[in-house]
Amino acid sequence: MQFELTKYFLAEIRSNIEANNSDFISNEIGNLHPADIADIIQHLSLEEGKIIFDLLEEEKAADALVELDEDYQEKFLDNLSIAEIAEQVDQLDSDDAADILGTLTEEEKDEALSQMQDKDLASEVIDLLKYDEDTAGGLMQSEYIQARSNWSVKRCVIELRRQAEDVEQVYTIYVVDDSDVLLGVLSLKRLLFAQPNAHISDLFLSKHIKYVKTNDDNEEVAEIMQKYDLVTIPVVDSLHKLVGRITIDDVLDVIQEEAEKDYQMASGITDNVEATTSIFKNIKSRLPWILIGILGGILSSLILKSYELEISINPILAFFIPLITATGGNVGVQSSAIVVQGLASNDFQFSGILKRVSKELIVGMIIGIICGGLVFIANYFMNSGDMLMGITIGLSIFIVVIIAAIFGTLVPLVLEKIKIDPALATGPFVTTSNDILGLSIYFLIAYLIYQ
Amino acid sequence: MQFELTKYFLAEIRSNIEANNSDFISNEIGNLHPADIADIIQHLSLEEGKIIFDLLEEEKAADALVELDEDYQEKFLDNLSIAEIAEQVDQLDSDDAADILGTLTEEEKDEALSQMQDKDLASEVIDLLKYDEDTAGGLMQSEYIQARSNWSVKRCVIELRRQAEDVEQVYTIYVVDDSDVLLGVLSLKRLLFAQPNAHISDLFLSKHIKYVKTNDDNEEVAEIMQKYDLVTIPVVDSLHKLVGRITIDDVLDVIQEEAEKDYQMASGITDNVEATTSIFKNIKSRLPWILIGILGGILSSLILKSYELEISINPILAFFIPLITATGGNVGVQSSAIVVQGLASNDFQFSGILKRVSKELIVGMIIGIICGGLVFIANYFMNSGDMLMGITIGLSIFIVVIIAAIFGTLVPLVLEKIKIDPALATGPFVTTSNDILGLSIYFLIAYLIYQ
Repeated sequence: MQFELTKYFLAEIRSNIEANNSDFISNEIGNLHPADIADIIQHLSLEEGKIIFDLLEEEKAADALVELDEDYQEKFLDNLSIAEIAEQVDQLDSDDAADILGTLTEEEKDEALSQMQDKDLASEVIDLLKYDEDTAGGLMQSEYIQARSNWSVKRCVIELRRQAEDVEQVYTIYVVDDSDVLLGVLSLKRLLFAQPNAHISDLFLSKHIKYVKTNDDNEEVAEIMQKYDLVTIPVVDSLHKLVGRITIDDVLDVIQEEAEKDYQMASGITDNVEATTSIFKNIKSRLPWILIGILGGILSSLILKSYELEISINPILAFFIPLITATGGNVGVQSSAIVVQGLASNDFQFSGILKRVSKELIVGMIIGIICGGLVFIANYFMNSGDMLMGITIGLSIFIVVIIAAIFGTLVPLVLEKIKIDPALATGPFVTTSNDILGLSIYFLIAYLIYQ
Repeated sequence: MQFELTKYFLAEIRSNIEANNSDFISNEIGNLHPADIADIIQHLSLEEGKIIFDLLEEEKAADALVELDEDYQEKFLDNLSIAEIAEQVDQLDSDDAADILGTLTEEEKDEALSQMQDKDLASEVIDLLKYDEDTAGGLMQSEYIQARSNWSVKRCVIELRRQAEDVEQVYTIYVVDDSDVLLGVLSLKRLLFAQPNAHISDLFLSKHIKYVKTNDDNEEVAEIMQKYDLVTIPVVDSLHKLVGRITIDDVLDVIQEEAEKDYQMASGITDNVEATTSIFKNIKSRLPWILIGILGGILSSLILKSYELEISINPILAFFIPLITATGGNVGVQSSAIVVQGLASNDFQFSGILKRVSKELIVGMIIGIICGGLVFIANYFMNSGDMLMGITIGLSIFIVVIIAAIFGTLVPLVLEKIKIDPALATGPFVTTSNDILGLSIYFLIAYLIYQ
């Protein structure tokens, strides 16, 4: 009953494409969910995908097109003529139509819009394309159900039946006044169970209604919908007129992308690198971070160069370089990650930087004592009781841990203040800085102890 | 119209609590959304929170309790008597009730269940508590709307009105046969617009219905709901009988936790560390990773110890230790992160390990040539044209980058195969291994070149 794409089924599809067996495609693939069809198409070549695509019913094809991964979709659209794209877009909801057209050049976009059959949809899409894609306006669709507060339930059901033809998923009805100003919401459940002669004005909720404005940030929309467990949210313009709605499935993508972005930053990748991403794009999204690391490494080597004499006299000093950099790096990244997650969930709203830093100072001191002690003991056995070296490395680790913890805490907080994504701090940037910081501390201590 | 928690409002709440002004609390706080009330309570002390809580309407209080952060909720529940907890749980949906009771000890749980007024709810909760919390059974609620396929629309509306009293959010009606076996789904929209004398059997969808089984994994549920843009999904037992439903808001938490878990692992934290997390728990979730790093650092120092003579003769070798470890670490983490994200989104379903590794090999070689070349040039200026050292470090970086890329790709793939969370690979584990690997390569090359 549930569809699962198997190697075997893929091979069957391929051989049927080769054999020009269009019945197989329309029956076996055409009946699947658009998301499953997109999944199949993505596992085939562009040519094979196009063959399947052309055999699907119009609406199914368009829905499958929307479900394709960004990278594959772009390539796929390149293979379609403007007329074909216009034909697809005609079948879509306004938000999906705007997303597809948004990937085209200005010229292609205008051409596709002019070739659309559904002129109402085209003008809705033109409106939607005006909004920044990272705002509520960029997420919303023009398909929603609205009722006037002075309607009776009976009239409402009749009017809504007409409206609902265009709207795939209906959960909530938005109640507006005569100038389309949002007054409140009415759940379909409440409408279904209401007396036919009751009035909408007696049924709808108007207090504490959640809505967003067209220029609200994507992430803000996600936060509100998540916080209040909303399945849809109405979007209003600056005059509080209802202009669209956002459904949870679109917001789900925002939430996931946001979380993935943090993870990518922490791993030193600037962009989403997928299995299908080209080698060039792969390198492009990785090289900047590696080069930061290389630059940091060269700076580190300059610091070490200034202690050349000490190292040649006492090469044991060099043995602990990786220990210092690794420990400083690990502690710093942890501290940054805690702050980044805290900022994302508004944990520090009122508790302030000082409280955060002092807590981190205590944590750093405890971890520092444990690690410093361990390293002191390890050195005792490794370097046959060289106490001076034990004190040098133990003390260095203790101080490096504390400094790394504080530094790792402060960097994302400062980035947030100057409106840079704090997740940047958990990536190679903070590791590199901690390498340099840690080595400077270590060799300074060694210099002071051994001089 | 939208609620926003401000420092000023918090101060006002505090002074009203102090002044015993219960009117303020029931009017100004009692009318807010439970999520907002939870937000307020979390910003106050447990005692202050309890005062607000006691002044809320029963249902509102229970809903706010559910919305509290895990850490705060646990502490808050500790302050409630079993009788108070039972009273709260009586107001909740079955899934929320099970979540709250799930945090108690076995004894407390049984006591609370026996003290519940709503015996039906109690027995539903007992059923739900049997399921592992990481499965569909652990996510689902017993409140849903079902219709028999042989009902007329008119009868259905009457029957549903009765059922719907218990069910907060109704979007989809599940259609079952006489033994409760799931036959299909019917959207509320379709029911609303149907003729009263039509039959459910003519209206409901039975093909390609998405459902999950009670023992399906959490993440699988999330994947299906996300893929097919579902707002709710029915849960069936092994006999295909309908036993519950899962709503998107619960799955949203799963998706976010999953994404956060990956990020935490990449940053070397085992648990969610929040601003309110105790210092002990904070250290507990960080120390294991740091100790892995320390252990790796000590191993590194043993490797370096075996090259003691080389370092004392040629201390320049030591200068590039941080460069080697940083570059290897950065490249390895990137490669792992790409694989981890690919695995999460099923990118490598059919493309295979070999293809992935060979692509990574090419990327590694190109990045290796760029970095090796840069370092060669940097060394030329730093160490006044020491060509031998330039070749050593340039060649080492080239090889370290390639090995780190391949190693970083293979580790998560192997972990996945042996059923360990591959995200583990992006944390300190892979960085530490790369440090050791990188240093071994570097000093081996140096040894071969200089001998």
